[in-house]
Amino acid sequence: MPVGLRELPPLDSVPGIRLGTTAAGIRKPDRPDLVVIECAPGTNVTAVFTRNRFCAAPVTVARDHLETAPPRALLINTGFANAGTGPFGLEDARACCAALAGQLGCRTEEILPFSTGIIGERLPVSRIVAGLPGCLMNLNENGWAEAARGIMTTDTVPKGSSRKINLGSQTVLLTGVAKGAGMIRPDMATMLAFVATDAAVTPAVLNSCLLTAVNQSFNRITVDGDTSTNDACVLMATGLARNSVIDRVEGEAYAKLLGSVTETFIGLAQSIVRDAEGATKFITVEVRGGLTESDCLAVAYTVAHSPLVKTAFFASDPNWGRILAAVGRAPVERLDFSKLAIHLNDVCVVRQGAPDNDYTEARGIAVMRLPEILIRIDLGVGIATARIWTSDLSHDYVRINAEYRS
Amino acid sequence: MPVGLRELPPLDSVPGIRLGTTAAGIRKPDRPDLVVIECAPGTNVTAVFTRNRFCAAPVTVARDHLETAPPRALLINTGFANAGTGPFGLEDARACCAALAGQLGCRTEEILPFSTGIIGERLPVSRIVAGLPGCLMNLNENGWAEAARGIMTTDTVPKGSSRKINLGSQTVLLTGVAKGAGMIRPDMATMLAFVATDAAVTPAVLNSCLLTAVNQSFNRITVDGDTSTNDACVLMATGLARNSVIDRVEGEAYAKLLGSVTETFIGLAQSIVRDAEGATKFITVEVRGGLTESDCLAVAYTVAHSPLVKTAFFASDPNWGRILAAVGRAPVERLDFSKLAIHLNDVCVVRQGAPDNDYTEARGIAVMRLPEILIRIDLGVGIATARIWTSDLSHDYVRINAEYRS
Repeated sequence: MPVGLRELPPLDSVPGIRLGTTAAGIRKPDRPDLVVIECAPGTNVTAVFTRNRFCAAPVTVARDHLETAPPRALLINTGFANAGTGPFGLEDARACCAALAGQLGCRTEEILPFSTGIIGERLPVSRIVAGLPGCLMNLNENGWAEAARGIMTTDTVPKGSSRKINLGSQTVLLTGVAKGAGMIRPDMATMLAFVATDAAVTPAVLNSCLLTAVNQSFNRITVDGDTSTNDACVLMATGLARNSVIDRVEGEAYAKLLGSVTETFIGLAQSIVRDAEGATKFITVEVRGGLTESDCLAVAYTVAHSPLVKTAFFASDPNWGRILAAVGRAPVERLDFSKLAIHLNDVCVVRQGAPDNDYTEARGIAVMRLPEILIRIDLGVGIATARIWTSDLSHDYVRINAEYRS
Repeated sequence: MPVGLRELPPLDSVPGIRLGTTAAGIRKPDRPDLVVIECAPGTNVTAVFTRNRFCAAPVTVARDHLETAPPRALLINTGFANAGTGPFGLEDARACCAALAGQLGCRTEEILPFSTGIIGERLPVSRIVAGLPGCLMNLNENGWAEAARGIMTTDTVPKGSSRKINLGSQTVLLTGVAKGAGMIRPDMATMLAFVATDAAVTPAVLNSCLLTAVNQSFNRITVDGDTSTNDACVLMATGLARNSVIDRVEGEAYAKLLGSVTETFIGLAQSIVRDAEGATKFITVEVRGGLTESDCLAVAYTVAHSPLVKTAFFASDPNWGRILAAVGRAPVERLDFSKLAIHLNDVCVVRQGAPDNDYTEARGIAVMRLPEILIRIDLGVGIATARIWTSDLSHDYVRINAEYRS
C-alpha cells in the first residue's frame, strides 16, 4: 500500500508529444508493457542515466543515439532490463530501435531505447517488434496515463504529475510519468522518468535545468541503496508553446521553468518512495549543521540505509539508539557527539548528545505511529544541510523481493 | 535457526581465568545476563573496540582503564548497551566497576566494563551491583560455557571454541566466547568476544597478534552493515603455560599462536554470521582479481549489504543480475564489465561480462538451495583478493528487529 499517494491525477497533454501503449506480452500476458513516446520534430531532448558501471544495454545505446541525432521517439519496455546480457544485449536494443525507426520512417539513431525488469535474460525482440503496431495505432497526445501504467513493474500505482507555468502571456505545460519501487538509489538519474514540456528552451539550458532538478529530487531518494543498471530520466521540450526561447540559466522565465521541473521531479521521486516495495512509512531524513552538504548527505544516507533503523520504523518503535548508531558510523570526518541533536517530527529525542529531559517513550511512539515522519539530525558543527526521502523495511519488502521472479 | 552451527563444543578451562555468571534480572527475569571474568595477576590483556564515533560509555571507560592499569577483571552485562546515555552513562559504567573492584579488593581502573543490549536507556546500576555476589560466588575456571550463555542477546545459541597448541614441550590452551547476531558490521572489532590463553606472551606481541587476527576474522563479517556502538574483542594471556615467553612477531611460536588465535577468531566470527538474525544461508563472498585488497573488500561488502542480493539468497533464487548490479555500483575506480566473472559455488554464471553459455536456471537453483554458498567474483583487473562472510535477509530478520524492544 503506497503511503499517502493519491490516485493518478489528470495528466495534461503536451503539444508535440504523442504516446502509445500496448500489452505486447513481453513477460506476462495482458498487461501494458510497451510504450512509444513520439516527439514532434524540433523537440529538444536531454537525459541522465545511471552511474552503475554495469549499465544495461539500452542505456549504452540511448546515450550513443542521443549524441548522434535529436530523438524522434522513445521506446520503453518492461519485463526484461536487458542488463548483464553482453554484446547480444546491444544488438537486441538496436534491433528494437531499428524496427520502430522503420515504422516511423526515421533513422535507428533517432530512437532512444529504455528497458526495465529482470536482469540477465535476453530481450524478446520478436515480441517487442510485434507489439510496435499496437503502440503506434494508439499514439495520441492524451496517452500519458496509459503510458504511466505501461512502464510499471513492481509499482502498485501509476505515477505522474502535471503543472502549468505562465511565461509572459503564454501558458507552458509540463507533464511527466515515472516508475520505480525497488532497486532505488538513483545516482545522477532515477529509475525511469519521462517528463515533457512545450516550453521553448535551448538544448544547453534544458540540460542544465535537468541536472539541477535531478540533483534535488531523484538523487535525493533511496529505498534499498541499490542503484539500478537501467536508471534514466528524460526531459523533452517541444518548443510549441511559443514563449520567448529560454536561452540562459538566469532570469524569471528560467527560474519558473526550473522551479516547475524541480517540483515535478520531486513529486515523482517522492511518489516512488511512497510506493516503495513494502513501504508502510514515508520518511524524510533532514541533516543540518554539517560542515558540507556532502557530509550531511553521507549521514542522511547512512541512516536511510540502515536495516535496523528501517525495521524500527516499520515497527513504529522509537528505538532512536539505532539512528544514533547509524550517525556514528557515517563516513564523515567531523562528528561531535556532545553537539548532536535528533528530533522525530517535533519531538526532541537527543540534545547535546544525551537523551532529552522531556522525552518520553509515549511521545516517541505517538510520532512513530504516523505514516509520514521527519527525522531531523543536527550535527552542530557547521551550517550545511541536506534532505532525502526514504521508506521503511517491512515483511513485504522481503516477500516482494524474494518472490520477484516467480 | 543457525546455519550449520553445532552445539557449543566442550570449552577447556584456561589456567588463570575464572568466570562467574548470574541472572541479575537486568532487563528480563531468569536469564543469565551478568558475567565476571577474572584474570590472574600478571595476565596481559589487549583489546580492540568499535570505531563507531558514538561509542557506548563502557567502551570509553574500558579504553581509559586499559591504558591506566592491567585489568584484574572484566564485567559484562546484557540488556542495556549504555550507549547514547551521555555523561550519566559514564558515571553508571564507572559505578559498576567501582562496585566490583570493592568486592575483589582492587582499584576501579582494574575493571573493564562491557555492555550490550538496548541503546539510549540508562544502566540499572543497582540491579547490576546486586548481581555481583552471584557472579563472584560462581567464579571458577570451568565457567566458560555459562559465560557464553550469559552474554547472549538475540543470539539463538551460545558461541565458543577451544584450541590447543604445542609450543616446544608445553601445551598452550586457547578458549573464547562471543556474542552477536544483529547490528553486525564490525570495524576494527566485533560485537563482544572474550578470548583467553595461558601462553606467555609480551603485551606488544599479544596486541599485534590481536590486530592481525581481528583483521582476518571479525573485520570480515557483516550481517546488516550496522556497526554497533559497543563492539569489543578482548584477548587475554595469563602466561601460566610456562612456555618460553613469545616476545617478537616472528618465529615458529608466534606463528603458531597467531594461527591459533586467528582460527579461533574466524570460528567465532563465522558463528556470529551463522546465527545472524533470521539467517537461513551462510554466504561467503570472495572477490579476486582486484587492483587492491581494499577494492576487493569494497566490492564484497557492496554485494553483502545489498538487500536485493540478500533477499534473493533467502528465496534461493539465482537472480544473479542483482549481484551484477551491486558490483557495478561498488565504490571502486576500476571495473571492466568485459572481464567480470561470477561463480556460485562451482557454477559459472557470468564469464567475460556475459551470461555463461553452460549456465542454466536449473544449475543456479541447485546451488541456491544449499545452506552454504560461495559467491566468487573475479574482477579480472589485478591480483588482489579478499573474502568476507555474510547472511541472507529473511522475514525473520524483519520480525526480530521489529519486535526487538517489545
